[in-house]
Amino acid sequence: MLEITSEGPGLYEFTAQVTGWCADQDIADGLLTLYIAHTSASLTIQENADPDVLHDIEVFFRQLVSRDPGLYRHGAEGPDDMPAHIRSLLTSTSLSIPVTGGRPVLGTWQGIYLYEHRDQPHRRCIHLHLSGE
Amino acid sequence: MLEITSEGPGLYEFTAQVTGWCADQDIADGLLTLYIAHTSASLTIQENADPDVLHDIEVFFRQLVSRDPGLYRHGAEGPDDMPAHIRSLLTSTSLSIPVTGGRPVLGTWQGIYLYEHRDQPHRRCIHLHLSGE
Amino acid sequence: MLEITSEGPGLYEFTAQVTGWCADQDIADGLLTLYIAHTSASLTIQENADPDVLHDIEVFFRQLVSRDPGLYRHGAEGPDDMPAHIRSLLTSTSLSIPVTGGRPVLGTWQGIYLYEHRDQPHRRCIHLHLSGE
Repeated sequence: MLEITSEGPGLYEFTAQVTGWCADQDIADGLLTLYIAHTSASLTIQENADPDVLHDIEVFFRQLVSRDPGLYRHGAEGPDDMPAHIRSLLTSTSLSIPVTGGRPVLGTWQGIYLYEHRDQPHRRCIHLHLSGE
Repeated sequence: MLEITSEGPGLYEFTAQVTGWCADQDIADGLLTLYIAHTSASLTIQENADPDVLHDIEVFFRQLVSRDPGLYRHGAEGPDDMPAHIRSLLTSTSLSIPVTGGRPVLGTWQGIYLYEHRDQPHRRCIHLHLSGE
Repeated sequence: MLEITSEGPGLYEFTAQVTGWCADQDIADGLLTLYIAHTSASLTIQENADPDVLHDIEVFFRQLVSRDPGLYRHGAEGPDDMPAHIRSLLTSTSLSIPVTGGRPVLGTWQGIYLYEHRDQPHRRCIHLHLSGE
């Protein structure tokens, strides 16, 4: 399991932790599955060349999923909580990536990200599962 | 395979059926994959503590994906059908969850849901696959 | 690995290539995972009976994710690039489908699609992984 720390809404790259974990396993070829055990954060593979991409993604989601408390019944955990659940549903909780030669198949400019949707700092638990030969 | 009955758009929890199925398998540690063989319903993991969360999700999707027939060419199966396909694409058809000690790794307040997008009652087929040691 | 050619935004069915690939494997029952190694195209299972469904999906996404360059900082690769990253995040990078009797479990009207988000023609790499007995 990996623990990734977040400090507010946005994308946090942890590709190096994933490739490091894979390199430590005895399985060279197989399938890696990442799973985030939370309902207000998600997983995604995105371009890691230009940080503006990450900025634009967060701006888009901020507009798509309003934080206006008047729109929601569920508000006890703060105005960012219900939007976080919706953003989680619109993105991904699990992600599977083939592994060859001990490395996940990622393009040159691809990175693996935690997408945090809550305002407060969090430690997010990401489970990794590798099956193969 | 599990069959889950739905009666209109919304989220239907079936966590107990999934944990029961896992408990009956001979594999204690591995990876569980859920797959819904439909294009107008989806799968999600969401908070199961406050039913208002489920209500707010459905209200959001109802607004995000208009049911106005004038917006779509495909209307032969009713005004809820094309929005259902779009909602399916915006959410998930398959979901993978690590299993340890015979149980899927779920937090205290996490539940596994069928997200039904059609108006009429349906019986939805969800396939389960468990691999591991 | 499969290579699928696209010519502009839209859904490209490649179900036949996937079922053909599965038929050539030695594994009759297991789990098939598809993975697209790109951040501006995605994978989905959709209805393949009425081509209007594919048209309506693309119209919806074109409206949901604006191509107005004024909305984005990241624009160096053209006005379709940042929307493509967002569309990729709203849909799926990996997809898992149970396999029985050498065939993926698909309903009569279900097809597997590459969803291309870029304007220019592309050759997209889709990795396939099959585990099982």
